[in-house]
Amino acid sequence: MRIARFASGDDVGFGLVEADSDTGEDYVSRLSGHPLLGEVKLAGERAKLTDVRLLSPVLPTKVVCIGKNYTDHVEEMKNVTGESTDEPVVFLKPSTAVTGPQDPVFHPSVSEQVDYEGELALVISRPCREVPRERVKDVIFGYTVANDITARDLQKKDKQWTRAKGFDSFCPLGPWITTGLSIEEAQDLALTTTVDGEVRQEGRTSQLIHDIPEIVSHVSSFMTLLPGDVVLTGTPAGVGPVREGQEVSVSIEGLGSIDNRVVSRD
Amino acid sequence: MRIARFASGDDVGFGLVEADSDTGEDYVSRLSGHPLLGEVKLAGERAKLTDVRLLSPVLPTKVVCIGKNYTDHVEEMKNVTGESTDEPVVFLKPSTAVTGPQDPVFHPSVSEQVDYEGELALVISRPCREVPRERVKDVIFGYTVANDITARDLQKKDKQWTRAKGFDSFCPLGPWITTGLSIEEAQDLALTTTVDGEVRQEGRTSQLIHDIPEIVSHVSSFMTLLPGDVVLTGTPAGVGPVREGQEVSVSIEGLGSIDNRVVSRD
Repeated sequence: MRIARFASGDDVGFGLVEADSDTGEDYVSRLSGHPLLGEVKLAGERAKLTDVRLLSPVLPTKVVCIGKNYTDHVEEMKNVTGESTDEPVVFLKPSTAVTGPQDPVFHPSVSEQVDYEGELALVISRPCREVPRERVKDVIFGYTVANDITARDLQKKDKQWTRAKGFDSFCPLGPWITTGLSIEEAQDLALTTTVDGEVRQEGRTSQLIHDIPEIVSHVSSFMTLLPGDVVLTGTPAGVGPVREGQEVSVSIEGLGSIDNRVVSRD
Repeated sequence: MRIARFASGDDVGFGLVEADSDTGEDYVSRLSGHPLLGEVKLAGERAKLTDVRLLSPVLPTKVVCIGKNYTDHVEEMKNVTGESTDEPVVFLKPSTAVTGPQDPVFHPSVSEQVDYEGELALVISRPCREVPRERVKDVIFGYTVANDITARDLQKKDKQWTRAKGFDSFCPLGPWITTGLSIEEAQDLALTTTVDGEVRQEGRTSQLIHDIPEIVSHVSSFMTLLPGDVVLTGTPAGVGPVREGQEVSVSIEGLGSIDNRVVSRD
């Protein structure tokens, strides 16, 4: 299933995205209830996907990120973030950084270099702590596409990455949550990032250094994860800047695309 | 005013803490509503403060922390965190780290050294972004006491501080939020940390390198702050380990004390 959050007129809610059986065109059918916090059912209305505004598919209490998790990316970033490590590098983005799959990314005037980082993200289904590798599949609700936008110069300057990765709008998510994938399937998807249509990152989630069971097991070893929390799994090689006026798109095979234009605040 | 969150029987809610006019003993009077999200009024019940369980006075969407903000603490930590910096060092604790003013702190078995860090914290009153220094007073709801518990060995090992500072229970807050203090008053308070009654930290909030207006102005320059968000302002010199079985107390003049025993999970 593909579960989106969307706005249509004054209404905001969750919806099921499905292709019309006749035309093949995508429609979103409104769901009543919250898919992560209880039962949902079809509310009976549907709209063309192109007629609604997609929002971030979830409002997480935490956005947990993994750094340095693709070998070729660790290599290209050595001068900023150092060598690879035996355990996953964990950091947080504030929940206020989350934005929708087609929303603008605001370029802060204080940074000279804002980079895209296309990533596979997973959404947690239930409160969990100290999840062993073999149970990780039971706490994943589904998968979505993320862009871990980073002010590279501030990341280097600040040492702690909170500001560099924490600006409002620096965490586009979407276009929806795809459920029903096994971990094995999620770990064998092509990921592509483009800037104004030009390919910049081409990776496969099979290249993760620390795999999804290890990531969730490690993170939940020290912090309780809650329903709707989002975990970004790291970015492959090819990161680079995106300038005001350019559109950055991250696509993952089977999960869809997020397309965000970088704009000035003013 | 002193505004607490407390549990009494099956009820959880906010309350006003006031001394009885005859006996001088503290009572908590239940408030209906949420003091940060709308109007509140007295619900008409009161209980002795000693008869209720105090909870973290707020459930923040974000816990923003400032590192290296007292000169003598920067000096003592040089080998772990390096020299002082021209801008405040900002990092996040996950909201799941927050715990109550008398709750246990769980010592993770993965760490050899868990340190206390007594701190003044402020609570944000309203959504705000890019707050200029002179308006910071308008976005502060009140002040509370915090302990930025840190697994010092993991802080050194991980470089990013998320795990070292992010374990469940690593952010005791309380005992309540004190409102009505000016920033000048909040910046001239004695702070004391004890372990089993022995004084370990003695500082004054007047020693902050980056003062409260600068902190809030800086943090809000890149992330929107929301009602109830908590900002920890840094710790003075004297940080050190607290072992299982010991009780760590942080007291700030006029704001009260938080007293947390360090225990094993098992």
